[in-house]
Amino acid sequence: MLVGKQSWKFERAPYIIGTSAIVGPEEGQGPLAADYDLIHEQLDIYETSWEKAERKLLEQATSLAITKANVNTSHIEYFIGGDLMNQITSNSFAARTLSVPYIGVFGACSTSMESLALAAMIIDSGNAHYALAGTCSHNCTAEKQFRYPTEYGSQKPPTAQFTVTGAGAAVLCNRGSGPRVTAATIGKVIDLGITDPFNMGAAMAPAAVDTLRAHFADTGREASYYDMIVTGDLSAVGHPIASDLLRQSGVSMEGTVFDDCGLMIFDRNKQAVQAGGSGCGCSAVVTYGHLMKRMIRGQLKRMLIVATGSLLSPLSYQQGESIPCIAHAVSIEMDSERE
Amino acid sequence: MLVGKQSWKFERAPYIIGTSAIVGPEEGQGPLAADYDLIHEQLDIYETSWEKAERKLLEQATSLAITKANVNTSHIEYFIGGDLMNQITSNSFAARTLSVPYIGVFGACSTSMESLALAAMIIDSGNAHYALAGTCSHNCTAEKQFRYPTEYGSQKPPTAQFTVTGAGAAVLCNRGSGPRVTAATIGKVIDLGITDPFNMGAAMAPAAVDTLRAHFADTGREASYYDMIVTGDLSAVGHPIASDLLRQSGVSMEGTVFDDCGLMIFDRNKQAVQAGGSGCGCSAVVTYGHLMKRMIRGQLKRMLIVATGSLLSPLSYQQGESIPCIAHAVSIEMDSERE
Repeated sequence: MLVGKQSWKFERAPYIIGTSAIVGPEEGQGPLAADYDLIHEQLDIYETSWEKAERKLLEQATSLAITKANVNTSHIEYFIGGDLMNQITSNSFAARTLSVPYIGVFGACSTSMESLALAAMIIDSGNAHYALAGTCSHNCTAEKQFRYPTEYGSQKPPTAQFTVTGAGAAVLCNRGSGPRVTAATIGKVIDLGITDPFNMGAAMAPAAVDTLRAHFADTGREASYYDMIVTGDLSAVGHPIASDLLRQSGVSMEGTVFDDCGLMIFDRNKQAVQAGGSGCGCSAVVTYGHLMKRMIRGQLKRMLIVATGSLLSPLSYQQGESIPCIAHAVSIEMDSERE
Repeated sequence: MLVGKQSWKFERAPYIIGTSAIVGPEEGQGPLAADYDLIHEQLDIYETSWEKAERKLLEQATSLAITKANVNTSHIEYFIGGDLMNQITSNSFAARTLSVPYIGVFGACSTSMESLALAAMIIDSGNAHYALAGTCSHNCTAEKQFRYPTEYGSQKPPTAQFTVTGAGAAVLCNRGSGPRVTAATIGKVIDLGITDPFNMGAAMAPAAVDTLRAHFADTGREASYYDMIVTGDLSAVGHPIASDLLRQSGVSMEGTVFDDCGLMIFDRNKQAVQAGGSGCGCSAVVTYGHLMKRMIRGQLKRMLIVATGSLLSPLSYQQGESIPCIAHAVSIEMDSERE
């Protein structure tokens, strides 16, 4: 149903019938370790390249989500996914392995919720019974592609973020019980002129705020409707900026817990992750691992995930462009909470 | 409505109320020159980088499609687009200029129909009134990113294809008259092990055939239902392979004209384009320029566009991977032809 200029409210809200979260060793040392399905001890996951390791993470996550949903791959009618790699190769190669109809998407680190929103919309509209959404990132593929060769050991400013090694996936179905995807807000590209790729939290914060404001306006909900509102990877620099911007624009965040996946995934006092986590895998594993488990345990009834993405490329940065950013929001609610 | 495992048949088939096709100088020398809205004489479009030129092409195409649809940018509820650039920067930067909710997608050269299929589905399902689909490519950005610096002047085998410089866009609406998007088939990733990036036509042909077969099976239509069935960019090597594979699998293509955008866009006898055209812009400008004009003139009543894409990256190729391919099909029919 059309509820506003940029939000969808799902009349037949699809059920999330299976999720998975698989991470690398650093994430396995973090505070959410108990909520992951699998923690790899080896950063290369015994593969011969970082790219193959990232792809394997996603293949394992999609396979596990399907298994946990208690269905077969042949049930899955559409796989929607994307990642940070040039030409989103991790997802395209995983889609080859899955061999199901594939819709490749790209929203940088917002891809987790972009793919979940589209999967939910396809099911809600009656165009599928089962759909799979997935995404992934790997610290070493991202460092290699976006920054410097890791062998340089180049220093980073404290505003930099640490790309999460992890993959998360969710199987959605038009029938089921438990958590449902009830609404989604598709973000606009926001760019306030920040050009420093080592300060993406600051660049992305205005996009998160813009999408949050649109979500509240479109759905008529207030922050207090949700037990928890979680941004994707604003981390220690961007999340306080988002809070400030919300306050300045008169949006009350009272009555909810306002947190960030990039802050939740690591212990910044013990782990060398600068401002916190980032990457497509960050919001994916925190949502599909930690938050979904909290929801199923009854600790959360309604949550809104606002995944944020920096839509730059190394080339656009080198050519002096600022960083266009986007955020897509998805609300997940326990079935019993809907009337 | 759900018609099969990988096809959507649109009950409230959205109207294509405005399209645009803008090309570079080489395309302007081709046989379809009369059907483009704008032909740039300068390959750099007076910009300071090829990437900025590609982005400008798309910005012009989206703006022109909106103008030709006789609406304003503020009417557009969703922009769905992608391109070949790393992190699809041409589309993300164009989305920044448009400032409308943005769904970034990637399907390599199949992006033209992937974005059109999604735009149609969002409208058909009642989740938008107006949506914009667009894509682009530029010969020089693609050469730079996927092949060798153009300054090398490296020779190419005759199986290679020439990336089209062009951008196309379409505005869809739930009301109107004329051409409508009536169905779409989302492709699977098909990879028969071809590893030569200078022979993408051969790599993509099996994906086109797989999607065509699925489309016929899902919709119950035969090839003769369509006046014309057009693949995206199989060109002189891939298109005959697709014809052979269809024949071998018992699919009759009688009663329709089976052609290819990569073959139609250039005159291979006069233009140095090797096997023919390719790139996201190829199927976009042929469809949104030439074919839509033929439809509006009454020369075509029903057509099926099967846009094909090679989902490789330079890195996946360098690491010895074969080329995963995909094809997405969209059927466009004149209103009067539907009962």
